[in-house]
Amino acid sequence: MKTNPGRFFEDYRLGEVIAHAVPRTVSGGERALYHALYPARHALYSSDEFARASGLPAAPMDDLIAFHTVFGKTVPDISLNAIANLGYAEGRWLRPVWPGDTLRSESEVIGLKENSNGKSGVVYVRTRGLNQRGAAVLEYVRWVMVRKNRATPAPEAIVPELKKSLTAGDFVVPEGLDFSKYDFTLAGEPHRWGDYALGEKIDHVDGVTVEEAEHMLATRLWQNTAKVHFDATNREDGRRLIYGGHVISLARALSFNGLANAQMIVALNAGAHANPCFAGDTVRAWSEVLDKAETKAPGVGAIRLRLVAVKHGAGEFALKGEDGKYLPEVLLDLDYWALMPV
Amino acid sequence: MKTNPGRFFEDYRLGEVIAHAVPRTVSGGERALYHALYPARHALYSSDEFARASGLPAAPMDDLIAFHTVFGKTVPDISLNAIANLGYAEGRWLRPVWPGDTLRSESEVIGLKENSNGKSGVVYVRTRGLNQRGAAVLEYVRWVMVRKNRATPAPEAIVPELKKSLTAGDFVVPEGLDFSKYDFTLAGEPHRWGDYALGEKIDHVDGVTVEEAEHMLATRLWQNTAKVHFDATNREDGRRLIYGGHVISLARALSFNGLANAQMIVALNAGAHANPCFAGDTVRAWSEVLDKAETKAPGVGAIRLRLVAVKHGAGEFALKGEDGKYLPEVLLDLDYWALMPV
Amino acid sequence: MKTNPGRFFEDYRLGEVIAHAVPRTVSGGERALYHALYPARHALYSSDEFARASGLPAAPMDDLIAFHTVFGKTVPDISLNAIANLGYAEGRWLRPVWPGDTLRSESEVIGLKENSNGKSGVVYVRTRGLNQRGAAVLEYVRWVMVRKNRATPAPEAIVPELKKSLTAGDFVVPEGLDFSKYDFTLAGEPHRWGDYALGEKIDHVDGVTVEEAEHMLATRLWQNTAKVHFDATNREDGRRLIYGGHVISLARALSFNGLANAQMIVALNAGAHANPCFAGDTVRAWSEVLDKAETKAPGVGAIRLRLVAVKHGAGEFALKGEDGKYLPEVLLDLDYWALMPV
Repeated sequence: MKTNPGRFFEDYRLGEVIAHAVPRTVSGGERALYHALYPARHALYSSDEFARASGLPAAPMDDLIAFHTVFGKTVPDISLNAIANLGYAEGRWLRPVWPGDTLRSESEVIGLKENSNGKSGVVYVRTRGLNQRGAAVLEYVRWVMVRKNRATPAPEAIVPELKKSLTAGDFVVPEGLDFSKYDFTLAGEPHRWGDYALGEKIDHVDGVTVEEAEHMLATRLWQNTAKVHFDATNREDGRRLIYGGHVISLARALSFNGLANAQMIVALNAGAHANPCFAGDTVRAWSEVLDKAETKAPGVGAIRLRLVAVKHGAGEFALKGEDGKYLPEVLLDLDYWALMPV
Repeated sequence: MKTNPGRFFEDYRLGEVIAHAVPRTVSGGERALYHALYPARHALYSSDEFARASGLPAAPMDDLIAFHTVFGKTVPDISLNAIANLGYAEGRWLRPVWPGDTLRSESEVIGLKENSNGKSGVVYVRTRGLNQRGAAVLEYVRWVMVRKNRATPAPEAIVPELKKSLTAGDFVVPEGLDFSKYDFTLAGEPHRWGDYALGEKIDHVDGVTVEEAEHMLATRLWQNTAKVHFDATNREDGRRLIYGGHVISLARALSFNGLANAQMIVALNAGAHANPCFAGDTVRAWSEVLDKAETKAPGVGAIRLRLVAVKHGAGEFALKGEDGKYLPEVLLDLDYWALMPV
Repeated sequence: MKTNPGRFFEDYRLGEVIAHAVPRTVSGGERALYHALYPARHALYSSDEFARASGLPAAPMDDLIAFHTVFGKTVPDISLNAIANLGYAEGRWLRPVWPGDTLRSESEVIGLKENSNGKSGVVYVRTRGLNQRGAAVLEYVRWVMVRKNRATPAPEAIVPELKKSLTAGDFVVPEGLDFSKYDFTLAGEPHRWGDYALGEKIDHVDGVTVEEAEHMLATRLWQNTAKVHFDATNREDGRRLIYGGHVISLARALSFNGLANAQMIVALNAGAHANPCFAGDTVRAWSEVLDKAETKAPGVGAIRLRLVAVKHGAGEFALKGEDGKYLPEVLLDLDYWALMPV
């Protein structure tokens, strides 16, 4: 059999490091596509001049381009036989990705726990994205529920201890970043770090109705091969499930309206794909300020945000019902840190 | 309130200059997308070699990439609360945009006239696109009808005097442009400036049926944020209105067939989005030669063209009915100058 | 008449060389779009680093980008009035195409045979793609059935002798290509040239449901102007016929799963677009190993593959019925040579 059947739960070994295939060189082409696929407007990623005025040599590739590219490579090894994508933790962007960089990914198996039914188990991996110099650009922990294929003895259950949230000491501010001469007019909004209050909620107003062609273009661009995104005959209902990362990028781009100055994503504390998204859904977003922290970089503060994507029909700031479960209109609940001018 | 509510009629002041947000660096990525989104084939913008043989250092970005990029930036400040996009005048392309250039926009309020109902008014702006050296690449006048939000006294009515059409003395031929060794075979058609007669009409034959994904990719690429293009829940009929500029680019690209040598757009005299365009419409185009002029550049003539986009079902050279109003199948009526080999 | 009516059968002369219009400079933008439109994952075209480790200066543009670009230019002169695209032969990739290269095409008429009905005829052309230095990057023979427009005497019937298949002596291995240090992990599969047996068939498993926006973006990107791909009013059934090359690229990309190491296409022996493809079809692919050959390049072997694209509902390894005709679910039958690590 020459084709890749994917790994099953019993194929993972604790401590094993899996080198994922197909390194990828990114360019202005990926950036332009990202800006056509999502209403991305953060100035630091749109303008070389704005980036230079912020102490960087040029505009980096959007943070989520780095995330999707690194993530996409893991799919054939981690999630081809996954039943569910359960969570993210300890995500850190470690250095910017520039046009011309070549990214590859590797994942270390840091936890394994077979389910009591003996038919599946949870695999925890710490994935790292590396550039052509072998320097890490991104890392995150992800855990997925994976099918078993053979009746094998359950491995010793190891569940890694993961931080609920990273703190200012954990994440990396890119070398040279300086917001002390930040141009709020060019950035699009006057609100600085000091203007955001803990607990404040922001409705990002705008909505985007998603098309099949769009989410497939995006998901393919990241070389994510999961059948369910592309093959309408794969599910009984004839619908293609939209890659959760597409919803992340949509919601993050929509959050420009109210968070135009939350320029740079530096950490991913947690994330849940609360409900599936399908073509025809109109996606909106809202945010909540969860925390704030200072950094040592000139003029740069950090803000911890909950970013929630919902679909049309959701109530204002919809999240969970009285039963503590996500409401059916909630697509995404993401917890991240971003850098802002103070 | 952190989100941008847009400006209302009473928020504009005569003489005010509005600096629009989010500068944008353009690259070969934007060009490739433009050529995927529109059947653009003008050789000067397709081939570095052809551009060099025409006296330019390389192929510039398509003229309408410059227009859409500059225009898109104005939307949050000018047309978020617009009821109607009423017209364009005195548009001039002032220098080519090259891959790597960073564009930003600013608009001066040059006219204000409140409507007699006191509920809206017309705002006239002169918008300029500037590159990273602060040099103007494009300017045009546009007027839109904007809602009032508060009961304020009407400002003194000022309606700017605008030229019906620019003339050869008004527009700028790019430095170095030389069509004296123009290769008509590579350009795709043998017809030179001298072959076009005043009043001549050309049916461009080909049609394109528009898809939702396409117009949204295009409109987002220009960072145009108007809700009505993206959100199917925004209109009662559940349809997304297609950005008028998408129809301009479609029609201009279709006009290659018959006007392959009308290489470079240098002026926009007037433009009307006669009827809305929706996904599923099949767009065709025809042109009429309105005027011709000589230029001082070697081998370069100028031709003034009416470019009309229609949808399927329109009669030959459809434009206006006996009542002087645009026929319902007419989408666009554009009046521009282009440069051609003599 | 200023527009291009296309050529009819009686307009071709044996030995004539037609220079096709609109040269095209390709960049990282075209590459990114290719990777968004097709699930292309061959490492040599995805990563500059992988290409350098294989003896090339950087990742070339995907072989089929070169093919589509060269082919697209021929459409206005060769197939605008074509009734059917009958076949391909003697296709050879002669040198890699790099970002920044400018491609143009020319076709020599090498055969003409009027049909007995006097209403159409078969035109054979040898098409060459040339880069900005005039060096050939690709050549292939194609024959199409073209309508007659006027009652003219039939030309002497000349049918060129074409090789059924090229052999190792015919095709060109790019200068410097060296697979002796090939990284199978990064490439995505462990199977080397020696692991494939003559007659072996591989089901590539994955499927893609095609959308209108996708095939139109692709076909426009190659500046292919055939109406039937874009204009839903062109056929009585209101469907847009998908460019056959879109199916070639889809199938080739899907074949990564099982043929990840068949990196580089060097020859096209034959190709048939067995049945039309329309939006909504779910495309799958399978391959058969037809032949193998050694090359003089270090670590590089050649493999001759049949690549078959089918649509959903086709049986396993579906090809032809008992009557020797292609089954209705078969879209493409392509015969090509690729280079693989030995």
